[in-house]
Amino acid sequence: MVSAAKETQSNAPLRLGMVGGGKDAFIGEVHRFAARLDGHYELVAGALSSTPQKSRESGEVLGLAQDRIYDDFHQMATEEAKRDDGIDAVAIVTPNHMHYPAAKAFLEQGINVICDKPLTSTIEDALELEKVANKSDALFILTHNYTGYPMARQAKEMVANGELGNIRLVQAEYVQDWLTVEETNKQADWRTDPARSGAGGSIGDIGTHAFNLACFVSGLEVESLAADLQSFVPGRRVDDNAHIMMRYAGGARGTLWCSQVAPGNENSLKLRIYGDKGGLEWCQEDPNYLWFTPFGEPKRLITRNGAGAGNAAARVSRIPGGHPEGYLEGFANIYSEAASAIRAKKYGTARPEATQFPGIKEGMQGMKFINACVSSSAENSKWVTL
Amino acid sequence: MVSAAKETQSNAPLRLGMVGGGKDAFIGEVHRFAARLDGHYELVAGALSSTPQKSRESGEVLGLAQDRIYDDFHQMATEEAKRDDGIDAVAIVTPNHMHYPAAKAFLEQGINVICDKPLTSTIEDALELEKVANKSDALFILTHNYTGYPMARQAKEMVANGELGNIRLVQAEYVQDWLTVEETNKQADWRTDPARSGAGGSIGDIGTHAFNLACFVSGLEVESLAADLQSFVPGRRVDDNAHIMMRYAGGARGTLWCSQVAPGNENSLKLRIYGDKGGLEWCQEDPNYLWFTPFGEPKRLITRNGAGAGNAAARVSRIPGGHPEGYLEGFANIYSEAASAIRAKKYGTARPEATQFPGIKEGMQGMKFINACVSSSAENSKWVTL
Amino acid sequence: MVSAAKETQSNAPLRLGMVGGGKDAFIGEVHRFAARLDGHYELVAGALSSTPQKSRESGEVLGLAQDRIYDDFHQMATEEAKRDDGIDAVAIVTPNHMHYPAAKAFLEQGINVICDKPLTSTIEDALELEKVANKSDALFILTHNYTGYPMARQAKEMVANGELGNIRLVQAEYVQDWLTVEETNKQADWRTDPARSGAGGSIGDIGTHAFNLACFVSGLEVESLAADLQSFVPGRRVDDNAHIMMRYAGGARGTLWCSQVAPGNENSLKLRIYGDKGGLEWCQEDPNYLWFTPFGEPKRLITRNGAGAGNAAARVSRIPGGHPEGYLEGFANIYSEAASAIRAKKYGTARPEATQFPGIKEGMQGMKFINACVSSSAENSKWVTL
Amino acid sequence: MVSAAKETQSNAPLRLGMVGGGKDAFIGEVHRFAARLDGHYELVAGALSSTPQKSRESGEVLGLAQDRIYDDFHQMATEEAKRDDGIDAVAIVTPNHMHYPAAKAFLEQGINVICDKPLTSTIEDALELEKVANKSDALFILTHNYTGYPMARQAKEMVANGELGNIRLVQAEYVQDWLTVEETNKQADWRTDPARSGAGGSIGDIGTHAFNLACFVSGLEVESLAADLQSFVPGRRVDDNAHIMMRYAGGARGTLWCSQVAPGNENSLKLRIYGDKGGLEWCQEDPNYLWFTPFGEPKRLITRNGAGAGNAAARVSRIPGGHPEGYLEGFANIYSEAASAIRAKKYGTARPEATQFPGIKEGMQGMKFINACVSSSAENSKWVTL
Repeated sequence: MVSAAKETQSNAPLRLGMVGGGKDAFIGEVHRFAARLDGHYELVAGALSSTPQKSRESGEVLGLAQDRIYDDFHQMATEEAKRDDGIDAVAIVTPNHMHYPAAKAFLEQGINVICDKPLTSTIEDALELEKVANKSDALFILTHNYTGYPMARQAKEMVANGELGNIRLVQAEYVQDWLTVEETNKQADWRTDPARSGAGGSIGDIGTHAFNLACFVSGLEVESLAADLQSFVPGRRVDDNAHIMMRYAGGARGTLWCSQVAPGNENSLKLRIYGDKGGLEWCQEDPNYLWFTPFGEPKRLITRNGAGAGNAAARVSRIPGGHPEGYLEGFANIYSEAASAIRAKKYGTARPEATQFPGIKEGMQGMKFINACVSSSAENSKWVTL
Repeated sequence: MVSAAKETQSNAPLRLGMVGGGKDAFIGEVHRFAARLDGHYELVAGALSSTPQKSRESGEVLGLAQDRIYDDFHQMATEEAKRDDGIDAVAIVTPNHMHYPAAKAFLEQGINVICDKPLTSTIEDALELEKVANKSDALFILTHNYTGYPMARQAKEMVANGELGNIRLVQAEYVQDWLTVEETNKQADWRTDPARSGAGGSIGDIGTHAFNLACFVSGLEVESLAADLQSFVPGRRVDDNAHIMMRYAGGARGTLWCSQVAPGNENSLKLRIYGDKGGLEWCQEDPNYLWFTPFGEPKRLITRNGAGAGNAAARVSRIPGGHPEGYLEGFANIYSEAASAIRAKKYGTARPEATQFPGIKEGMQGMKFINACVSSSAENSKWVTL
Repeated sequence: MVSAAKETQSNAPLRLGMVGGGKDAFIGEVHRFAARLDGHYELVAGALSSTPQKSRESGEVLGLAQDRIYDDFHQMATEEAKRDDGIDAVAIVTPNHMHYPAAKAFLEQGINVICDKPLTSTIEDALELEKVANKSDALFILTHNYTGYPMARQAKEMVANGELGNIRLVQAEYVQDWLTVEETNKQADWRTDPARSGAGGSIGDIGTHAFNLACFVSGLEVESLAADLQSFVPGRRVDDNAHIMMRYAGGARGTLWCSQVAPGNENSLKLRIYGDKGGLEWCQEDPNYLWFTPFGEPKRLITRNGAGAGNAAARVSRIPGGHPEGYLEGFANIYSEAASAIRAKKYGTARPEATQFPGIKEGMQGMKFINACVSSSAENSKWVTL
Repeated sequence: MVSAAKETQSNAPLRLGMVGGGKDAFIGEVHRFAARLDGHYELVAGALSSTPQKSRESGEVLGLAQDRIYDDFHQMATEEAKRDDGIDAVAIVTPNHMHYPAAKAFLEQGINVICDKPLTSTIEDALELEKVANKSDALFILTHNYTGYPMARQAKEMVANGELGNIRLVQAEYVQDWLTVEETNKQADWRTDPARSGAGGSIGDIGTHAFNLACFVSGLEVESLAADLQSFVPGRRVDDNAHIMMRYAGGARGTLWCSQVAPGNENSLKLRIYGDKGGLEWCQEDPNYLWFTPFGEPKRLITRNGAGAGNAAARVSRIPGGHPEGYLEGFANIYSEAASAIRAKKYGTARPEATQFPGIKEGMQGMKFINACVSSSAENSKWVTL
């Protein structure tokens, strides 16, 4: 695992701030679990809601000092930048449309940013953020958390090692059912509002995860896609289902299906990759298993930290095979990878070689994916270059 | 089950002939198992190979009388039609390009035809065969055998009963790996030769099954599709993989993926259907299970002849739940359904109401599917009407 | 597969008779499917019920000639023995207490017997039957049908080849739920009546199958056992659940759990075998899969007729991997093995070397198992030698 | 979840010390993850090894203040008890034989103890510890962590609510393979040394977990058992496999199989419970799923925080269904339950009603289980009262 034991300069936790993630937020709490699990962060500051009163209440519950509960993120960025004990990094866990202004505020103060996906709500914001991030010394980490799962790392390593041969097919799907009927809770509200979520509904919320994971594991880039988006639920303003055909650089082909209206699917992110020498199958809901079939041999079940698993998975595993790790551990791996990089920058040391996490580049690709899906679907599924 | 016990006129087996299905044939032997299992047929005549010598040898091994082993199917059709004890039906199990002439020969003699899929190798042949079949009194049964599985029947019944609500999504896939590398056996030879197989490779061989099953279970017709076909193996003259997006009448959408180059998949035909009230999932390799999720409730595992299974499945099941039935039993159900219809026609009785099997109509739809896939792919995945 | 094509003397089906198996019978119909599937038998005679009228009606439905529908099995044995075209074998599918007298009648006429399990209802009958069988020239086949499954053969072959090393553990279970509450149908009636079923309830009906399979696959004999039998349902006169610890010759240990009162289990026969080099797991409800783990390597999924399966399984498989075979095919393998042996005897040829089926020896072992369970449980689970 | 948000007196983390758990320790690191995940504890003191030098090095890596890294646990108990900011609780994660003296030292200082299982290495120590614990005001928590899994709580709740009816069968197994061959690492060393581990090998290390879980979920107590213990690996001084039949108060029966020599099993703890109205099945390696079959209805898959899951599971779940939680989350639930109780005691408030965790009572039952197994096996599997 990415353990404290490997840190050389200091074992003191990094100081973390948070924008968004107040009461009733889902993803903010996930980020806090992820930050806490490996002991690399201590949450010390926050602008936890766009409503100052709610931000204050949430901060108190989380045990933040009064003077580090902020009414808004601009104030927080400015004040924290002034402090000797200012935050080392900020987690941005707001609805999508706030990612850009919040990330900009901290990056411009030189504060490292850990931002939830997708990158922004519009491609224009994304391009601006890209500029800001490239100009800033601060790190930008995008929490495409599924790349933190040990067996996703294992799969990537096997593909890179040529165990599947030449990749021909990349089949990704991310299927849920929670928006099967009209929902009016906080989570559904902003996710189905184009002004806050962006042009993509399911493609932005979950499709980008599947897209990112497909590229991460296959090591390939998508060149073009043809999409057919649907909004099945009457009155819904964004897509709740999408069928996408994809052409990868180098000749591989694939599909991506994302849906939030398929009853019986909770959070079914699946990836299947096939080459001329073998195939791999992985499912997020059973994340400790990876199916591998060398062509012409029996299927093998590789388990996290079990027989057949290699270094890439072992590096981000905590406990022995048969002791399941889950979503929070995978998410924590992104945080711990980020901690390695942030500490290396802070203490002027070399970043451990194997450290990896998604950043601005992956964020931009995700935005291009969303845009291409929307464009293609608007033109009756024409192939669109990313 | 479709048992002999229900027959009223006569319990004597029907007399069956066979065209194709000699030594080394795969599907011919399957048809013979299917014909034999429920005791409804006795194989008495055959033109088992296009090579007379091989036909003769195969016929002897199968115990046919010398005078009913024929050198070619034309002779067989003529001679059998003359006999008092002539065959009641003929099974046509040749490569695709021979389906049309063989079926024509028997239909024109008034002999019932049980034909393997796809209907023919070309749309032209298909249109001609349609005419012949419509003109003939004889029955034409197409062995889309997967519709014979009890749980496929169960799924169809549940959809028809509204248990899924309004259907939104139909996701079908049929994935194999046996053509991952260049193959030169008999089975691969004709299936990858456009002259014998038709314009479709994987889409004809297995895609039509998935297409047929999707329509059968959903009760919906495909209006248009957009396809991206590939031939991954160098030198292959037909597609070995296809990605297809589909639009169904009434607003449902779906995808169909068929592949013969995905290592780790033996014969993985899967169907997933989702409506606004529930979802169903079925996989041919584990055919005794059907997953059903009423939206907002726990997933349920319905088993063949177990709790939760209804009449449509019980009617074509032989043994109690927990005692698995398989591919041959499903195939035999098509034969036994056909036997009901053939007997009703033979004895002038009413066909039992629930009897059903695929015929010319389903065959024509399959041919249109193949053609639409080829056309769409040739035009860069343009949406094509079926 | 054990196909007709391999027969040299004659391809004509063997003539089969049946005792028991009339209307509403479960296992009789199963035997008929099994006899029919591979085309090795034709049913021509029967004493299908202990009630002559019912026997007659059942025989007519099955299309038997009037003069070969018998009122009782004694008459049938005598008459069939006299005919030139008399039956080659008889299937005995009565309740357990009739196995002995019926088998005796046919064996003494030199007619081969295919008998359902357990051997008899009492150990006394079993010892008598053993004598009769040993004195007769006729073959005695006991349908421990689960040994007919290709993957059970595969498992046995792997154990015999040393792929598991020295066997340490044999864990067998056979779990059902259909007797969870008091049942009064025909199937339940005789199975819970000691006079017809024997001293064993679940241990006789299903425990013997698990016991037989454990010995078959492991190649080991049970030396002693300690049992705790229960009758959970009030008023039930035989056990409906049993926990058994077993000591095998050579030092292996194991358990056997059989139950008919475990809700959620339809027909869950499972076998897990572990040696010092590897482990195997198989479940009857998913019979086409065998899990194999060489110690220290990833688990492998061996499929029937798929990669990794050997000759023993291929010999009794009909169709390619991914095309599931089931209970009837496994049962039919016993019938087809028997046909090989019966034909060899009939035509004076050598029995094909690999032919195997359970017989008197396995039947006696099953009876000793039942008796030891009852004795042990009566003495508070004392270890009892078989 | 057992969240910080519910605390009223103070959100400050509790101060935690640790005995054992230095470099190369497995379970110590697990306890630290568990303590950290929900933010209820801060590790501030330790006697992390019986070797002072190693204790010191480990403490530094963990960022402990120099004056709170202790050479031995006696010193630690004394010194911490004196401090105003002394530890609120100590985690004892040593080999089994040190549980008693360490727990005694802290309990006698009034410091709450969180102790790994089994309770002690000998029944004598256990009885002494029971006295000490009962005399002390301090809390004693035993980390039978598997009772912390949400779906184990769900199962317990369903049994308690009568959804299974009257319980008849409790089948528990805990199967591993890591001791299949002789092992000489640190983990194997003390676990196979009776002086450090106690009289039980597999029965102490993992059998006690299965025993505890069976009692926890069923709500039943074991009255007597009959055991057959084995040491398959030559030279091994404790059991590495055990077969146990059990009789529960009230008439339920069960078996428990634990093994560390079954290749292909990583950490396969399974529980199956059957009553006269339904059955439940749960497996630790797939902990987010619980199978429930109401007798006569289809099997249902209940998921953590998904449809069908109740309050008991929701209370200890952190994230939505489909987002898997694992071993560390389950373990953390014990720590967070303990935190609720420790805070209630510390601040003089009422302990939240639903709070539950294993303690001395469960520890004593586990010791009696080990002793009964050893006694029974020594007397050829005689039934022994607990």
